[in-house]
Amino acid sequence: MFQRIAFIGIGLIGSSLAHIVRRDGLAGEIAVAARKQETLDAATRLGLADTVTTDPAEAAQGADIVFICTPLGAYEAVAKAIAPALKPGAIVTDVGSVKQSAIAAIKPHLPEGVHLVPGHPLAGTEHSGPESGFPELFEGRWHLLTPEDGTDPDAIAKVRAFWEKTGSKVEVMDPEHHDQVLAITSHLPHLIAYTIVDTATQLSTDLQKEVIEFSATGFRDFTRIAASDPVMWRDIFLTNREAVLEILGRFTEDLTAMQRMIRRGDGDGLEDVFSRTRAVRRSIIDAKQA
Amino acid sequence: MFQRIAFIGIGLIGSSLAHIVRRDGLAGEIAVAARKQETLDAATRLGLADTVTTDPAEAAQGADIVFICTPLGAYEAVAKAIAPALKPGAIVTDVGSVKQSAIAAIKPHLPEGVHLVPGHPLAGTEHSGPESGFPELFEGRWHLLTPEDGTDPDAIAKVRAFWEKTGSKVEVMDPEHHDQVLAITSHLPHLIAYTIVDTATQLSTDLQKEVIEFSATGFRDFTRIAASDPVMWRDIFLTNREAVLEILGRFTEDLTAMQRMIRRGDGDGLEDVFSRTRAVRRSIIDAKQA
Repeated sequence: MFQRIAFIGIGLIGSSLAHIVRRDGLAGEIAVAARKQETLDAATRLGLADTVTTDPAEAAQGADIVFICTPLGAYEAVAKAIAPALKPGAIVTDVGSVKQSAIAAIKPHLPEGVHLVPGHPLAGTEHSGPESGFPELFEGRWHLLTPEDGTDPDAIAKVRAFWEKTGSKVEVMDPEHHDQVLAITSHLPHLIAYTIVDTATQLSTDLQKEVIEFSATGFRDFTRIAASDPVMWRDIFLTNREAVLEILGRFTEDLTAMQRMIRRGDGDGLEDVFSRTRAVRRSIIDAKQA
Repeated sequence: MFQRIAFIGIGLIGSSLAHIVRRDGLAGEIAVAARKQETLDAATRLGLADTVTTDPAEAAQGADIVFICTPLGAYEAVAKAIAPALKPGAIVTDVGSVKQSAIAAIKPHLPEGVHLVPGHPLAGTEHSGPESGFPELFEGRWHLLTPEDGTDPDAIAKVRAFWEKTGSKVEVMDPEHHDQVLAITSHLPHLIAYTIVDTATQLSTDLQKEVIEFSATGFRDFTRIAASDPVMWRDIFLTNREAVLEILGRFTEDLTAMQRMIRRGDGDGLEDVFSRTRAVRRSIIDAKQA
């Protein structure tokens, strides 16, 4: 599919993709760049890289496609670093969770004749690092592509074909709309999970011990979400600030209304809300995303 | 183990227990009471009942142990109804998620010589009704007993032995303390999940459709929690009001601090919180509750 493929960053997503490239022989050569030598050593040990380097430009040199798989906060530095090394006709893509800021960080630095096809796989686990990757990660999950108008259709088709090989269902979406949808489906849920788990860490030691011991269904699910990569999530909240604050405002209003119903003993009001939300679950099961 | 066992209410928990009683031959006879005839028909069809009735007193008559498995809001009416039918030495237990209010609703109505041993299994799914029960529901999960001081040790031992047969790990806890711990581990997480899913239902139709279609990890988990039984959860919030409002207040403070960090672009602050919460997940994995 590609002669030379470059991964800048080789965490959960990058390493899972590298496993697939190896499994299906999708590239003649895999070049991997990472900031830390121990990450590169792990990638080599796992057989995920033909060449490793701490210099993104060296990995991008001569690559047909470059996957930026770093936290969003590193995008601009990566784009600046790789730009002079990119060959004409090369494709640059990414896997970041916020698309407007991804485009803003990369696009201005790319030379003419290089194609930017940003993307976001709706897949992940709470684990991070090159050892956490596995080739089945994307099976049956969405991959959202957010190319700007006027992007070369051949470049889009190549990126789509690659993601279809991972088992993803691929859809094209407007970047601004993507950021709004993800603020609700992913960013706000993570913010809330982080917050509730942090609230629990501030309890007295005795209570905290029991909270951990008796972490019944609800809390246990939240701790899994709140174990996600801290730097990746820091950057998501910093780069999708507007959309997150907007939906957080709505959530806070709704939570205040719930608080008032509890305080006033409004059982009918609570039951109404709890019945409505049950229907959403059924819709998700019908959409086969459960 | 018991001659006659009565279940008042035969939803997820009651029917799962009845499956176990059948499987392990823990009682000579199972009497089931429920409010709706269709529920009783289902219990009969599933082979979970020897006798069925819409009258709780009829089911409790002559029973060695009575399991109250209704929503918390029905407890007082059930206790009043069964009290005259209870034989001396009978044990009354329950499976409700709030223990102080359970005791307050049942205790005053029981005749002398009847033993109250309240309990709460930390087990469940988002499904409800007699068809949703299965005998493995309690395996490896906690069952918390909250008997008051002075309760007959033999009665406690019998209830403990019963729950150990279900595969539960049994622990005795003070009722007030139970309600505090559960407010954090279970009630607040459910309230938040209900709220965020409800926030999503109020979005524009277009956006809502996409939220359902692209319900990535975070939101999807919340919809599962928010599909739990509406009446059961209404009663939990009404009966554990004080503890829920107390922890909700702390959570809201913490969420406001997060909101401020996002608005101000305080990346270090966010990363600190997200790193702290990761450690809680590790504690839960170490406690083998993950």
